[in-house]
Amino acid sequence: MVRSILLRGFDQDMANKIGEYMEEHGIKFIREFVPIKLPGHLSKTAKHTEISNVCISVLQVLLAIGRDACTRKIGLDKVGVKINEKTGKIPVDDMEQTNVPYIYAIGDVLQDRLELTPVAIQAGRLLVRRLYSGSTVKCDYVNVPTTVFTPLEYGACGYSEENAIQKFGEENIEVYHSHFWPLEWTVPSRDNNKCYAKIICNIQDNERVIGFHVLGPNAGEVTQGFAAAMKCGLTKEQLDSTIGIHPVCAEVFTTLSITKRSGENTLQSGC
Amino acid sequence: MVRSILLRGFDQDMANKIGEYMEEHGIKFIREFVPIKLPGHLSKTAKHTEISNVCISVLQVLLAIGRDACTRKIGLDKVGVKINEKTGKIPVDDMEQTNVPYIYAIGDVLQDRLELTPVAIQAGRLLVRRLYSGSTVKCDYVNVPTTVFTPLEYGACGYSEENAIQKFGEENIEVYHSHFWPLEWTVPSRDNNKCYAKIICNIQDNERVIGFHVLGPNAGEVTQGFAAAMKCGLTKEQLDSTIGIHPVCAEVFTTLSITKRSGENTLQSGC
Ligand SMILES: Cc1cc2nc3c(=O)[nH]c(=O)nc-3n(C[C@H](O)[C@H](O)[C@H](O)COP(=O)(O)OP(=O)(O)OC[C@H]3O[C@@H](n4cnc5c(N)ncnc54)[C@H](O)[C@@H]3O)c2cc1C
Ligand SMILES: Cc1cc2nc3c(=O)[nH]c(=O)nc-3n(C[C@H](O)[C@H](O)[C@H](O)COP(=O)(O)OP(=O)(O)OC[C@H]3O[C@@H](n4cnc5c(N)ncnc54)[C@H](O)[C@@H]3O)c2cc1C
Repeated sequence: MVRSILLRGFDQDMANKIGEYMEEHGIKFIREFVPIKLPGHLSKTAKHTEISNVCISVLQVLLAIGRDACTRKIGLDKVGVKINEKTGKIPVDDMEQTNVPYIYAIGDVLQDRLELTPVAIQAGRLLVRRLYSGSTVKCDYVNVPTTVFTPLEYGACGYSEENAIQKFGEENIEVYHSHFWPLEWTVPSRDNNKCYAKIICNIQDNERVIGFHVLGPNAGEVTQGFAAAMKCGLTKEQLDSTIGIHPVCAEVFTTLSITKRSGENTLQSGC
Repeated sequence: MVRSILLRGFDQDMANKIGEYMEEHGIKFIREFVPIKLPGHLSKTAKHTEISNVCISVLQVLLAIGRDACTRKIGLDKVGVKINEKTGKIPVDDMEQTNVPYIYAIGDVLQDRLELTPVAIQAGRLLVRRLYSGSTVKCDYVNVPTTVFTPLEYGACGYSEENAIQKFGEENIEVYHSHFWPLEWTVPSRDNNKCYAKIICNIQDNERVIGFHVLGPNAGEVTQGFAAAMKCGLTKEQLDSTIGIHPVCAEVFTTLSITKRSGENTLQSGC
């Protein structure tokens, strides 16, 4: 059951490809439905789920519902720290400062920030350095790589296509993309044209890579190094001049030549 | 049977770690021996291998012996192109020009260059651009990422530790390293402290990363993006400011803090 869309906040082109892949591999999605009641065990292994006015029989129930920010009973009101009344999350500026200048907040409790372990660690480390050792380095919440450990793994860093279009304008971004077929999958002729690579470049800034997206095995391992490259200001030209490692999936990024604008076919017939 | 050392030309610290891992997993190495005669089938599945004066019974023989450059009978002498008499390989300058200015050579046939598919492709592409469209971009044979698909995969880009010491002097390089334990291996408590990450930085050049080495699952996928980052001039500071993806192996590179010089322990107790 999916409340609304898959992977809200992520590139929807990628999210939908993940959904298609899962459906083809036997996962049934019931979209725009919310469970309202779990009547409990009917038998040892069977559970019942009531949705809206529909009642569905299922064997197991697994809920992936995110977490709540427990900020309401810790006395923030006493010191005057504002929270978002609806979500309980704390708004901060780019220095992680709350509305009370000497109170800072980092990590999952923040409003409009990513909920990720290394982000919380990095933000904390940089905050301490700014407070106690004269540093001015702020936490970069844009070039944060992340991975969704779906059956077909999804790795991303930087802007989604939607956000890039919104921020820079469609005419100012160039999207390069390609399907790819991992070598190990070609032998059993498995799942051709399911894996997909996409980068988003800022035309006005020397075709700098502002978005990186990959769908395929070990996408997280693939993404980490490219995130370092984006930290170094990676441009399309630098990406093209990087020599590929053959045969790995990640090499597809060194030979991207088809723009989405062109409408050309990106399907691959070989590995 | 290993003629001399494992993986000549590669970082020997890494090569020896691969050897140790393979030995622990049941591969027996007979070092500094060369097969001189294969007397053929003794029974349907048994072969005999004669080494020096020793005779060894084996079930199967697999030879990994490299390839030869077939340059001797194609008339290079007629046009005056010099080859290395011993190896048959063709020496070229950094523009892939042979001693005959209008004859170029690229790919495996070159002397002192890497024998890799994407290198041959890139060199050819850049040569054509230089010859016919006014480009001056040369092929970079230093920042070439490569992967050895050993049981524990080895990915590398840039200088080996030996070559970095030789080129820059031991006092001018800083080596950061760490063991790591892939999450999937912690559950069965398998192979702790076998995976290993190492970077070599040039102290005189803002701790620029000039060598990248990783031993672990999917090392090739891990290496490709960092090779792009090295193309962008990745420094240790930029690497530290890259946010990790948790939990993947590649994130170890974003938190390297122990220098080899310090002699500190790099063993990991958790993932
Ligand atoms: C199921 C799940 C899977 C996840 N998987 C990943 C992943 O694969 N990769 C990734 O990067 N991130 C993942 N995350 C997100 C990651 O766990 C968080 O981003 C990270 O833990 C945030 O760190 P934090 O310090 O901000 O918050 P937390 O780690 O939640 O720490 C907050 C602490 O405060 C304590 N606390 C709360 N109220 C009080 C109080 N009144 N007094 C004292 N203590 C209090 C809590 O008990 C908790 O220990 C996952 C999260 C969940 C829930
Ligand atoms: C077993 C093996 C595994 C490998 N694995 C990898 C790997 O995983 N990743 C990687 O990047 N690289 C790998 N390589 C290396 C890769 O194959 C080479 O680097 C690449 O093929 C070099 O391209 P090339 O065009 O220079 O030479 P080749 O691909 O060897 O092309 C040379 C061609 O010239 C032809 N030829 C020779 N003499 C003549 C003649 N007189 N007339 C006409 N034609 C002639 C040959 O038949 C051949 O087709 C591997 C090599 C081997 C042998």
